[in-house]
Amino acid sequence: ELLSLGGSGVVEKVQLETNKTLEQTSTTGQSKTTKPHLEFPPIVYGEAKSKSNPHGKTILFYNHYDVQPEDPSELWKDDPFSGRVEGNRIYGRGASDDKGELVTRIKAVEYFLQATNGDLPCNVKFIVEGEEEIGSPHLRDYLLQYKDKLKCDVVIWESGYIDSKSRSVVSLGQKGILCVELNVNGPSHDIHSSHAVLVDNPAITLSKIICSMVSQRTGKILIEDWYREVKGFSRRELMAIAQEEFDEEDFKREIGIKNFANNKTGIDAKRARVGYPTCNVSGLISGYGGPGFKTIIPSTATAKIDFRLVPEMDPNIQFQRLQNHIAKKIELEKEGEPASGNKVEAKFLNGEPGYRTPLDNPFVTPVVQAAKETFNSSTISVSGAGTGPMYYFYEILEKASSICVGGSSISDKAHSPNENFKIDNLVKATKCIAKIIEKVGKL
Amino acid sequence: ELLSLGGSGVVEKVQLETNKTLEQTSTTGQSKTTKPHLEFPPIVYGEAKSKSNPHGKTILFYNHYDVQPEDPSELWKDDPFSGRVEGNRIYGRGASDDKGELVTRIKAVEYFLQATNGDLPCNVKFIVEGEEEIGSPHLRDYLLQYKDKLKCDVVIWESGYIDSKSRSVVSLGQKGILCVELNVNGPSHDIHSSHAVLVDNPAITLSKIICSMVSQRTGKILIEDWYREVKGFSRRELMAIAQEEFDEEDFKREIGIKNFANNKTGIDAKRARVGYPTCNVSGLISGYGGPGFKTIIPSTATAKIDFRLVPEMDPNIQFQRLQNHIAKKIELEKEGEPASGNKVEAKFLNGEPGYRTPLDNPFVTPVVQAAKETFNSSTISVSGAGTGPMYYFYEILEKASSICVGGSSISDKAHSPNENFKIDNLVKATKCIAKIIEKVGKL
Repeated sequence: ELLSLGGSGVVEKVQLETNKTLEQTSTTGQSKTTKPHLEFPPIVYGEAKSKSNPHGKTILFYNHYDVQPEDPSELWKDDPFSGRVEGNRIYGRGASDDKGELVTRIKAVEYFLQATNGDLPCNVKFIVEGEEEIGSPHLRDYLLQYKDKLKCDVVIWESGYIDSKSRSVVSLGQKGILCVELNVNGPSHDIHSSHAVLVDNPAITLSKIICSMVSQRTGKILIEDWYREVKGFSRRELMAIAQEEFDEEDFKREIGIKNFANNKTGIDAKRARVGYPTCNVSGLISGYGGPGFKTIIPSTATAKIDFRLVPEMDPNIQFQRLQNHIAKKIELEKEGEPASGNKVEAKFLNGEPGYRTPLDNPFVTPVVQAAKETFNSSTISVSGAGTGPMYYFYEILEKASSICVGGSSISDKAHSPNENFKIDNLVKATKCIAKIIEKVGKL
Repeated sequence: ELLSLGGSGVVEKVQLETNKTLEQTSTTGQSKTTKPHLEFPPIVYGEAKSKSNPHGKTILFYNHYDVQPEDPSELWKDDPFSGRVEGNRIYGRGASDDKGELVTRIKAVEYFLQATNGDLPCNVKFIVEGEEEIGSPHLRDYLLQYKDKLKCDVVIWESGYIDSKSRSVVSLGQKGILCVELNVNGPSHDIHSSHAVLVDNPAITLSKIICSMVSQRTGKILIEDWYREVKGFSRRELMAIAQEEFDEEDFKREIGIKNFANNKTGIDAKRARVGYPTCNVSGLISGYGGPGFKTIIPSTATAKIDFRLVPEMDPNIQFQRLQNHIAKKIELEKEGEPASGNKVEAKFLNGEPGYRTPLDNPFVTPVVQAAKETFNSSTISVSGAGTGPMYYFYEILEKASSICVGGSSISDKAHSPNENFKIDNLVKATKCIAKIIEKVGKL
């Protein structure tokens, strides 16, 4: 039902569902939603105290109700917000990222409230935001404002997943991110391309800047000092990485490629996923894009770029390094490719630091156990390759560490057309969350 | 009136106007239009024989009624097909390129027919095509089919122009062109950019290919053998180039740039315009182009590229060289940047060879004289920087040479929003064409 809500309708629905479940905790529980902020999608909060174990541990569930844009919508087999069920899958934008995971958590709490007469093995809190996909720009302020209310012992995160052999992967970290837009401005209007002999082309300038930033062969970022704060893995982390499952062939088949970048394989591929920074171009926009051709020098060229960061890399400092790189690239001769007459500007779109929960955190074992009991098998990932605001919880909520566990899998096409969630995994993930609540209640 | 016709209506109008004028030549003249081809915009033909000088020289006027796409239409102050007059300018897509020039030729012929009782100083023929802006794909076949009918002594071309000091520039050549589309295919669908650590990014691959093809500093094309057939200028050509007027500051102001590429200036800038091949990116299309960001690895990346060619460069051979370059770039290690896992394809969109009429061609002097008498001053350009199908006329019509003369100027914004034509130059250009007809009648 949640899937069929595109746009803002989803906010009210999330509030309703969260409240409905938590209100059943009656007087011992509390149900609250923050006053809706008009200027951004509201952050939804809910909590329920354990009657039998009120001084026990507290879990904070983190989820988000916002989704990626549904475009290219013509590649969807159905309406992107249909919630259509076909076989073992339910389709819709946000099915796996992150509406499906949110539902498993609500249902797990509901299970206890119904089964144990409105009680819960431990205290639970919910925070459901609406800006995860655009880098959670208001979450940090929210955490600062409500840090006492949000106090908890562990944060159970989205973005754990099921690997290609149906094993649960419990992930302990997230990469950071820096999103920028590069704008190159050339002539004041699109001009006839016969002038190309005299006029620097913004699209070529943009290509040169991109080439100067990253080696395609190695994936290495060529911006000065980019890796300055990056630390190597600990011995324990290296061991955990070696034990991670990663079915390379299955992954390649799923996304339709033959070889990984730089022919990475085995332990190299695993290490890269966990701990290598990236430079990714997510969009190029310049000049004419219609059928056939139009002989112009485009007036502008734009690239959307996201850099994944690892712990200790500060997005603001990295952005400054990028700006220095661009300034040098334009002003100085370097490798025989200097000085375009075009104006290049880098625009900061979003930045989040990365974070990793230590392997010896006391909540890791109960979560891994719960996952193992539900999905038969479970492994630990030192860090996922994706990004989220995990660091802010650590920074603000008295060093609360986060653990990612969930039921979505790579074949669910998160962020892509025809996103879906396997229905049997929805059921298992709900059971897994219930077991976590149970085990944390015994700590 | 012609300006207000968008789309196919323009074809009938051109036929009508051409016929109306030529039919007044009565029995001595002939008026014909080719049978409309259903599969492409028809080529319009008309002719009028001189009564008093039937065995004299024959001028073939070449023009086109098709135009560039009007987008970005939001940058037009008015409807792109309004034909609105404001002060000394008439606005509309095609005003200067090439509807305005076409009208001056029709009006000049009309002048003689009215002034001299249906006679003309020399024989005239008209050919008006509808596919110039997409590289005249059917013109060569048409010339081959009707080469006897089209027989002529000189072709008077579009794309002569008025420089920034109101002098007429008579141009004797056109560059060739090769238009291609580069398509890079990566993963089978847009995937989450957290996988960038393992998956080659098509937009980065595309940037690397572009960087490998052209030096932004020098504008030099780096594809092997690209310049193999390019000849230097003759001494006479060099002298003519040195005498060409080119107001660099005015040109820069007009298009809103501060410096020319590689800081070219003076004779270097002039030589480049006349005789240097170019590599121009007219469009980049990849991934997400909306507001904010979307963290994806795009499935595809496309570039639209046009290469201007000079005489002796064969578009088909150059395309083969481009393909070889791309194949090598992908397969081999080169400058430490090899082997992307992405598939790169070059698509041939259009190719036309370049051509230059020799400076000592006997029709050059009367045309330059006519231009001088009308616009007060006239200079010769060895070749324009733009492209047209001049070469095919030379190849097929018994080596008929072409001369470009016309009344449009750089400030008319050909190919750009708010294209226009100065009305006083329309009048002068009409007089100039009349004088050419008169002078050719005396040869």
